[in-house]
Amino acid sequence: MGYFRENIERLQGYVPGYQPGDADVVKINTNENPYPPSPKVLEAIRGFSPEFLRKYPQPLADSFREAACKVLGVGSGNIICTNGGDDLLTICFRAFCDEGRTVAYPIETYSLYEVLAELQNCKAVEIPFGNDNWIDDLVKAKSALTIICNPNAPTSTRVETDVIGELADKLSGVLLIDEAYVDFAEDNCLRLVEKYDNVIILRSMSKGYSLAGLRFGFGIANAELIAGLMKVKDSYNVDAIAIAAATAAIKDQKYFKSNVAKVKSERERLKTELEKLGLEVGKSETNFLLAKYSESGTLYEKLAERGIYVRFWNTSSLSDKLRITVGTKEDNDKLVTTLKEILS
Amino acid sequence: MGYFRENIERLQGYVPGYQPGDADVVKINTNENPYPPSPKVLEAIRGFSPEFLRKYPQPLADSFREAACKVLGVGSGNIICTNGGDDLLTICFRAFCDEGRTVAYPIETYSLYEVLAELQNCKAVEIPFGNDNWIDDLVKAKSALTIICNPNAPTSTRVETDVIGELADKLSGVLLIDEAYVDFAEDNCLRLVEKYDNVIILRSMSKGYSLAGLRFGFGIANAELIAGLMKVKDSYNVDAIAIAAATAAIKDQKYFKSNVAKVKSERERLKTELEKLGLEVGKSETNFLLAKYSESGTLYEKLAERGIYVRFWNTSSLSDKLRITVGTKEDNDKLVTTLKEILS
Repeated sequence: MGYFRENIERLQGYVPGYQPGDADVVKINTNENPYPPSPKVLEAIRGFSPEFLRKYPQPLADSFREAACKVLGVGSGNIICTNGGDDLLTICFRAFCDEGRTVAYPIETYSLYEVLAELQNCKAVEIPFGNDNWIDDLVKAKSALTIICNPNAPTSTRVETDVIGELADKLSGVLLIDEAYVDFAEDNCLRLVEKYDNVIILRSMSKGYSLAGLRFGFGIANAELIAGLMKVKDSYNVDAIAIAAATAAIKDQKYFKSNVAKVKSERERLKTELEKLGLEVGKSETNFLLAKYSESGTLYEKLAERGIYVRFWNTSSLSDKLRITVGTKEDNDKLVTTLKEILS
Repeated sequence: MGYFRENIERLQGYVPGYQPGDADVVKINTNENPYPPSPKVLEAIRGFSPEFLRKYPQPLADSFREAACKVLGVGSGNIICTNGGDDLLTICFRAFCDEGRTVAYPIETYSLYEVLAELQNCKAVEIPFGNDNWIDDLVKAKSALTIICNPNAPTSTRVETDVIGELADKLSGVLLIDEAYVDFAEDNCLRLVEKYDNVIILRSMSKGYSLAGLRFGFGIANAELIAGLMKVKDSYNVDAIAIAAATAAIKDQKYFKSNVAKVKSERERLKTELEKLGLEVGKSETNFLLAKYSESGTLYEKLAERGIYVRFWNTSSLSDKLRITVGTKEDNDKLVTTLKEILS
């Protein structure tokens, strides 16, 4: 017997996008918001009392739950706060899945789902999004947990809420709707929580609220599901400063909305520019674009050589595409100018 | 089939110590350090750049690892940083244990171990510390993971490093030495990491460094074990501010040592005072005391009524004891004065 479980020995592990230390690069590879968080966040951090450093934080992050309730129109018993959205994903796998209880999700999607399935040693049923019957195929999988990333990464597209509702209705297990990118979308699935007792919505403060560095996400579901998930989370899974900062961020809806509007406007401008250069770019309801170009691998390398980092996966369905985070106007202009040089 | 796994349905969940919102109480129930963290921590937090809020943090918390290496004299490949010590415990259960791979630990001890075993659906072999053959009993359990909390909570006692080394040598699985309280002890087990390839040391910034609110812990082990644990942790499990603050804290060894010395000095004074009142108090190598008193449950309630919160567990071996965190001089004086009133 080795020290590690066999599924862990086998595992490659999730590889996060490259985080260059150099500030002088254009970093549009991990879907961070190009703009800083609300000034209220900085105020909360700078005014933070050392008394709350030495003490354990609120186990359930009540300050944040209270503020989020008002914004979302749900009860505090409907919210679980987590150490980034990834923590909620991990909690759900540990709560619902094991060797006898599978997970199902449409692909291509966030590659962490597959890693978490291997970690939990549960079978992953992967249904190609393109299938005509993808909804029925997900239902037929009879999984304990079904995940749909919506809007989806890396495709940037969104499935209509009614269709997701139909899926929730047909499933016998839990439906986790990963809405990490929903702040940039035209609709969301929050209203399904009231209607279906098996729906969990995942939200993140990393993208729309510019707080990827802070690790703060949350789940929204009926109170019974939330109570079960609370048993699985670490006792103090979010820290005191993150609670204070995330609370300040979600309270400042005016800043949030203007930040999101700026990203969406740049997204549409960048899409047009990339299309002019001959790249095929799908509609995006996220803060990134998926651009199709036959020689994507080479293009990725040439951009990296010039200090511009985008995301490239060398897999059968993605090797002809690049995922490009919407940057600042300056980032996007530099990308377009550099692409022009490379492609000419 | 219910939504949750059966082991999760059954689970009561870990109950953290009471966190009163009122600042006007004496809170000596969850082993927090009574003194604030190093002023360098506040500097790091107040000077934190918003640029590092919008970006993802260092996946491996390299700044902290670099600083910790210098203090501990190990390589950065020997350190994994975690969202509090609890995160490392969770990672170890997920890495080593499952239905076919047990965990073993001496009891009474940190009650989270049992909860994590239930969450991972692995059998827990619990060996009473009092047993003459507790070491052999742990070895005979042939567990994939053996945990020893050292110094132990809630008993405040420590097993000698040589004895732990003997245990590591005999075990076929991994030995996790939970040193969350070791900053207040007379010796530690760090030197066992070089000698035994199955030893993982858990350390916490919550106690000696006064950073319970920040959630920062770390593990030290040989590079191969660390690499395996890295595959299990969440990609970005510690946040950017926590990394900056914990790095500042561990760099300020002068402040740390003076803080720990103050706690130890108060601990000995409080022990003497409690003994004068007729409580039986064991030797402590932690920042808390375990005090024996026949009517502990009643005493706990009377103290709480007077705004003094200590920890009480109504279990067979602990119902005649109170666990009392060493507070400030003022906290400890108030406890002693109040006890005098109650007991007279």
